[in-house]
Amino acid sequence: MSKNLTSREKDYSKWYNELVVKADLAENSAVRGCMVIKPYGYAIWEKMQAELDRMFKETGHQNAYFPLFIPKSLFEAEEKNAEGFAKECAIVTHYRLENDPDNKGKLRVDPNAKLEEELIVRPTSEAIIWSTYKKWIQSYRDLPILINQWSNVVRWEMRTRLFLRTAEFLWQEGHTAHETKAEALIEAEKMNSVYADFAENFMAMPVVKGLKSESERFAGAEETYCIEALMQDGKALQAGTSHFLGQNFAKAFDVKFTNKEGKLNYVWATSWGVSTRLMGALIMTHSDDKGLVLPPNLAPFQVVIVPIFKTDVEFEQISNLVTKISEELKRSNVSVKFDNRTTYRPGAKFAQHELQGVPLRIAIGPKDLENNTVELSRRDDLSKSIIPVESIKDEIPQILEDIQQSLYDKANDFRLEHTTEVNSFEEFKDILKNKGGFISAHWDGSAESENKIKEITKATIRCIPLNIDKSEGKCVFSGKKSDQRVLFAKAY
Amino acid sequence: MSKNLTSREKDYSKWYNELVVKADLAENSAVRGCMVIKPYGYAIWEKMQAELDRMFKETGHQNAYFPLFIPKSLFEAEEKNAEGFAKECAIVTHYRLENDPDNKGKLRVDPNAKLEEELIVRPTSEAIIWSTYKKWIQSYRDLPILINQWSNVVRWEMRTRLFLRTAEFLWQEGHTAHETKAEALIEAEKMNSVYADFAENFMAMPVVKGLKSESERFAGAEETYCIEALMQDGKALQAGTSHFLGQNFAKAFDVKFTNKEGKLNYVWATSWGVSTRLMGALIMTHSDDKGLVLPPNLAPFQVVIVPIFKTDVEFEQISNLVTKISEELKRSNVSVKFDNRTTYRPGAKFAQHELQGVPLRIAIGPKDLENNTVELSRRDDLSKSIIPVESIKDEIPQILEDIQQSLYDKANDFRLEHTTEVNSFEEFKDILKNKGGFISAHWDGSAESENKIKEITKATIRCIPLNIDKSEGKCVFSGKKSDQRVLFAKAY
Repeated sequence: MSKNLTSREKDYSKWYNELVVKADLAENSAVRGCMVIKPYGYAIWEKMQAELDRMFKETGHQNAYFPLFIPKSLFEAEEKNAEGFAKECAIVTHYRLENDPDNKGKLRVDPNAKLEEELIVRPTSEAIIWSTYKKWIQSYRDLPILINQWSNVVRWEMRTRLFLRTAEFLWQEGHTAHETKAEALIEAEKMNSVYADFAENFMAMPVVKGLKSESERFAGAEETYCIEALMQDGKALQAGTSHFLGQNFAKAFDVKFTNKEGKLNYVWATSWGVSTRLMGALIMTHSDDKGLVLPPNLAPFQVVIVPIFKTDVEFEQISNLVTKISEELKRSNVSVKFDNRTTYRPGAKFAQHELQGVPLRIAIGPKDLENNTVELSRRDDLSKSIIPVESIKDEIPQILEDIQQSLYDKANDFRLEHTTEVNSFEEFKDILKNKGGFISAHWDGSAESENKIKEITKATIRCIPLNIDKSEGKCVFSGKKSDQRVLFAKAY
Repeated sequence: MSKNLTSREKDYSKWYNELVVKADLAENSAVRGCMVIKPYGYAIWEKMQAELDRMFKETGHQNAYFPLFIPKSLFEAEEKNAEGFAKECAIVTHYRLENDPDNKGKLRVDPNAKLEEELIVRPTSEAIIWSTYKKWIQSYRDLPILINQWSNVVRWEMRTRLFLRTAEFLWQEGHTAHETKAEALIEAEKMNSVYADFAENFMAMPVVKGLKSESERFAGAEETYCIEALMQDGKALQAGTSHFLGQNFAKAFDVKFTNKEGKLNYVWATSWGVSTRLMGALIMTHSDDKGLVLPPNLAPFQVVIVPIFKTDVEFEQISNLVTKISEELKRSNVSVKFDNRTTYRPGAKFAQHELQGVPLRIAIGPKDLENNTVELSRRDDLSKSIIPVESIKDEIPQILEDIQQSLYDKANDFRLEHTTEVNSFEEFKDILKNKGGFISAHWDGSAESENKIKEITKATIRCIPLNIDKSEGKCVFSGKKSDQRVLFAKAY
């Protein structure tokens, strides 16, 4: 499996595609644009899910499950949302197959089993959920509703790439209902911050929190919060979004509540989601030409132990030591795998674990048994060291923390180096072409300037950053007045 | 929410439907046959998932994810499987909507976006998975493959009931690949035992492990192992199945491997699954006319604490005590909810928790503060007791264990009382009509007798039990020779 990867410098896109497949994370399937997530890739996604789920629950949310299908009449109720997704919907029109009379052993769609109303495979669940919330909400006592759903969704994308853009993907979608606009805005911003916290502390991926410009908003939203990360090729990646939906869905589905004063009002809404796209972001943020690099906080196993032996006696002695070490590490909440396969030689195992990004490798051979030592090898900086067995339980948790922090720092340094303030459109184009990364520039707030910049450069406004000092200036494109710099980049 | 339920005696089916809705577990959606699983119901499903997932991983399985859609040509490759599911398939034929020129603001299916090949929404994933395994398996070194998937599936059932039979449902499906027939048979039986273990020790639901008769097997299987439970109305419920698939899928998808001797062989397969149907089984096994009864091992929270107070001072004193008690209980791995809502009175809270089956309720009022006691109320037998605060941390874990065991014992007693050995067809019909439950009877092994019995009585062979003494006898229907008694029942 460990044939050399194309280098990032040579062809970043090819490097990514090869890495995903060779590291056994995912592969294309027989279904156009749909991927198979392989066990090693799925184990990383499970780690992500577990942490996010914990964070959602700690912020008061509960999980629930709504139907995969949306009747067309519900789907089209919120017009902007429907319009935004109409061109990429998988549509169920029939509910039965029959034997094909012209082809023995083959099946065909039964023309007598046509649905009266077509069903849309959910591209997002606002419509089906708000048609349900209508039944759940009568009074302020029923609010807030703070629900999350883990599910699959389908968006018929024309150009797909493993994890980054697939026709079917896995995600979570939060859907909340509130009494007031203020409360809904707070919720939308809060969940964006939860995403930022997760990205930075678990994925070791620095992000910018911000707002989308109107043209980049979610279809049906009045405000979209987002987190934006920067990949090693200088392109930005939207890693999560959280939408303030105003009363759009409440109006489309006629969801009103009686407030404490006895007045009938429309409910305020948010929705927010992250998806298996985060896998792509994780891979591209840290990995190198030798393969995947994983932050310890999301690695399926943090430490792998490889025995190096010639005789059965040596193997048994090493195994006994491994049992002891593993128990100690597990007590310190370090996850360990003992790679005792006899079908592969140590060199092949080293290559595989390097390719698959295991944060720390321990090798134990006869010399180590003699000296009561083990050899450590860090995946992030490829450094090696020899330590006494008795210091494993103190040193390894420390090293893993250090790896986690180093990965973040390295990505953060890269991001800082690749965020450039520009003050003219010439400079804008020059930086975009020759350096890439985020371009911090003044913008006049008009869709017109935004579109022109996009047409000419292919760069889009990634976000209007929150929490930065406002400073007046002139739009880099139009020269008109601007209140604040925004971040531009080419993006995934 | 706590209006009286229809009693089980009056109308068992109505009782079930009302209970599911009133206990806030699930409800019907705007999509025919598809349900919404509400947060309280979903929390129980999450508990089930967590335990099952742990058990799968402990038996060496890994999770992965395969596409929702199956191209028709792959779906029809294994003919028996395809034939078994063809009549209940949701079929995607188009991938785009467009504005309806005749109806402003409405959408219609874009006739120019017809798929070249229709996609089947998975009713089960053998076809898509075995078309993938073909790429993964070359040599014995690639075996066994032990994979599980948590997912949604769709079977277009004509008559649906919440949890028990829905068009879309959630489940897990294990799909394994092996070198030998023996190994695959062991796997199929092992996973059926895992299901039995889960049913008995977490759901507190006794089950019979057995084999299906040929006519009741999964489409495409050579042997189907199953666990069968008995509901309070005397009907059986198939709670889980595990299939030995022989080489059927390997042959359909041409999946061969080179064995240790260098010979090319077809791979042996199993698949096994349980679904949100288990929710229906759980509800029907333990609940009563007052509502849901949950075994502590699967309750979203095991203990609810309700404060009874008139003044703010009393509320504060009770809250302080609750903080202390909750911490102690959490240290003993007991999950606790403090129901400190001010919008509901204690009586309404009691009614809700009874309806929702919280295993143990603690009420604390001013008298209790004075005496340093609390009042306990068990949901299973509705008994009450007053205990000193200081004995909470020892007694409550014990009581919860006792509830778990009592629920199992009660269900097991019911099952034993409602399992009747019969030796004539007259007796068979009489017991089925007047007593219900499992009927243990000799059967000649022929599909003919089986079908006749079904036609006449509506009872089916639930399973050919494993682990029972074989005893020769005469078929209750035909009088022909029989090796073993099998279990008949009317079934969900």
